[in-house]
Amino acid sequence: MSKYWSQITKSIEPYVCGEQPKDRKYIKINTNENPYPPAPRVLEIIKESANGDLRLYPDPNCGELREVIANYYDLNKNQVFIGNGSDEVLAFSFLAFFNSNDYIIFPEISYSFYPVYAKLYNIDYKLARLDKEFSIEVNDLMSKDGGVVIPNPNAPTGRYMDVDSIKKILDYNLEKVVIIDEAYIDFGGTSVVNLIKNYPNLLVIQTLSKSRSLAGMRVGFALGQEHLIDGLNRIKNSFNSYTIDRIAAAAGAEAIKDEEYFKECVSRVISTREKVAMQLESLGFNVIPSKANFIFVTHPSYTANVLFTKLKGKNVLVRYFNKDRIDNYLRISIGSEEEMDFFIDRIKEVLDEIKNN
Amino acid sequence: MSKYWSQITKSIEPYVCGEQPKDRKYIKINTNENPYPPAPRVLEIIKESANGDLRLYPDPNCGELREVIANYYDLNKNQVFIGNGSDEVLAFSFLAFFNSNDYIIFPEISYSFYPVYAKLYNIDYKLARLDKEFSIEVNDLMSKDGGVVIPNPNAPTGRYMDVDSIKKILDYNLEKVVIIDEAYIDFGGTSVVNLIKNYPNLLVIQTLSKSRSLAGMRVGFALGQEHLIDGLNRIKNSFNSYTIDRIAAAAGAEAIKDEEYFKECVSRVISTREKVAMQLESLGFNVIPSKANFIFVTHPSYTANVLFTKLKGKNVLVRYFNKDRIDNYLRISIGSEEEMDFFIDRIKEVLDEIKNN
Repeated sequence: MSKYWSQITKSIEPYVCGEQPKDRKYIKINTNENPYPPAPRVLEIIKESANGDLRLYPDPNCGELREVIANYYDLNKNQVFIGNGSDEVLAFSFLAFFNSNDYIIFPEISYSFYPVYAKLYNIDYKLARLDKEFSIEVNDLMSKDGGVVIPNPNAPTGRYMDVDSIKKILDYNLEKVVIIDEAYIDFGGTSVVNLIKNYPNLLVIQTLSKSRSLAGMRVGFALGQEHLIDGLNRIKNSFNSYTIDRIAAAAGAEAIKDEEYFKECVSRVISTREKVAMQLESLGFNVIPSKANFIFVTHPSYTANVLFTKLKGKNVLVRYFNKDRIDNYLRISIGSEEEMDFFIDRIKEVLDEIKNN
Repeated sequence: MSKYWSQITKSIEPYVCGEQPKDRKYIKINTNENPYPPAPRVLEIIKESANGDLRLYPDPNCGELREVIANYYDLNKNQVFIGNGSDEVLAFSFLAFFNSNDYIIFPEISYSFYPVYAKLYNIDYKLARLDKEFSIEVNDLMSKDGGVVIPNPNAPTGRYMDVDSIKKILDYNLEKVVIIDEAYIDFGGTSVVNLIKNYPNLLVIQTLSKSRSLAGMRVGFALGQEHLIDGLNRIKNSFNSYTIDRIAAAAGAEAIKDEEYFKECVSRVISTREKVAMQLESLGFNVIPSKANFIFVTHPSYTANVLFTKLKGKNVLVRYFNKDRIDNYLRISIGSEEEMDFFIDRIKEVLDEIKNN
């Protein structure tokens, strides 16, 4: 700790992201990346954008990208906000809509960045309970206090909440912003984006990092009525006028436009997920039902931390959270068919090794 | 104003950046962009990076880029922090090192984003005075209060402060962080980066947007002793783990490596600046001495706002700030020789038109 740090710097508890090893020998199924490359046109537009115009600032309002996303979701351009990954959009949203003296609510097990944002901006929070199988207790989200944040599907559990439950939460919290973090919605859930016209308190946040295979380019976005988007713009323009570079904006637009490629990648991930879930169940794992591009699993006879370490020894990187209630679970991102076959072979070996020890 | 906005969203006063017109018919000398394209290898590496790896998250710590910058400045890697443009680095720095109950100090005329950050984070500030010709009163920066921020050269004046004056400020404020914002230092000033080893309170902030022709890619950085860089990392990792995309990181590294190209572009900008300054002086303008890639000018007989509007009508976009003390000045970015010749011809026409009216 340095005497030069502000009070906030001293008190925050930074987020720790999944390992990004550089040696590249791993089957990397630890950070929910898409196993398939970005759409071909994305790579082409990047090459085309490598020109002298990079000396110029980007469009601070990401006009073209906002238009493409608005078209895709049948919204208008002013209902779309672009940020540097959904993490930045979330960070801006906490500051834009939540006050430090009201309690906000999010599930007790959810994206571990939420409490970090709350701490950064000195926002108090309460945790909504989850049942034994990690379903969210909807009644706990009826708060009327400072606002609500729900990842749907939830992370790291993969659990999906249906549209009717979200409607109930929106109705109950009409005076406060309800953020639905749909980072993983494309892998089998139904977005609540159609509710935006009826709910002035609904902010939907999505990302191109997962279903659009663009984690490397940092593009996320928020969808909501114009007054909410205006609030986000006020925060952004008090922080950094240009958070999206020229190439990210161009690549993002192409990623949204190629719907066919997107659907194909997503459906392959879903079918691999279902296959892997069955295989793990047949090995005795309990697999939480997932609508995301990962599964959350536990085994009655084997310790998750041991499995994590042994898999890493066999060049398979999954995610382990050393946290209350989930410290005997592994989160496994869905890779390609081949990667998951390799993973299943290795986990069989690991189980055998432990059994024979 | 929306009832869903937080108190902060309601009270902030967002920054307004220079126009980024899309029609492109303008000679655009309003946002201090470099007239020359990025180094050839920058464009090449971008093309090479347009591949399937974009599905993967970038290195959250920008290891390679930090190493290249550390080498360039003879620092170690842990003395370098990378952000999404120097604006993001500044925003993080305000939060990392300044407290809301202490007054920070910056010049009364300086980068207009500073008071915006202060407002965003509820940090009080005092303004150091400038003399008639916009030189900063060094004694006003001897505060021992909450910290100091100095753009050097200053913007939008272009005024440069020598290393000895900065040393005095650093010595006086040893217990508080002094940020030297060197966005424009490469255009003729001397960086204080060599003082880092002696001053635990010194944070130097630079950008690739100006002298490296990469405004479109959003890369800025901070240099300082490790404990300051650690503080910035704590804030960043409480906000967004990955603020630099894969392509920006790769492009940034190449931009630093090509020193010869960089020096050539910078020296062309400097020689154009000196020529334009002389031309404007011969037209009766008062030109503030500049060590930046822009000049700040006023005319005893012509109103800046009128000149601004008339130039815009002739497809020349310069920057006009409707603010106390500088509302009769124009800030003119230094474009290419050809652009500045065009600009000088147009300003002559404008002066003639007004004279004959």
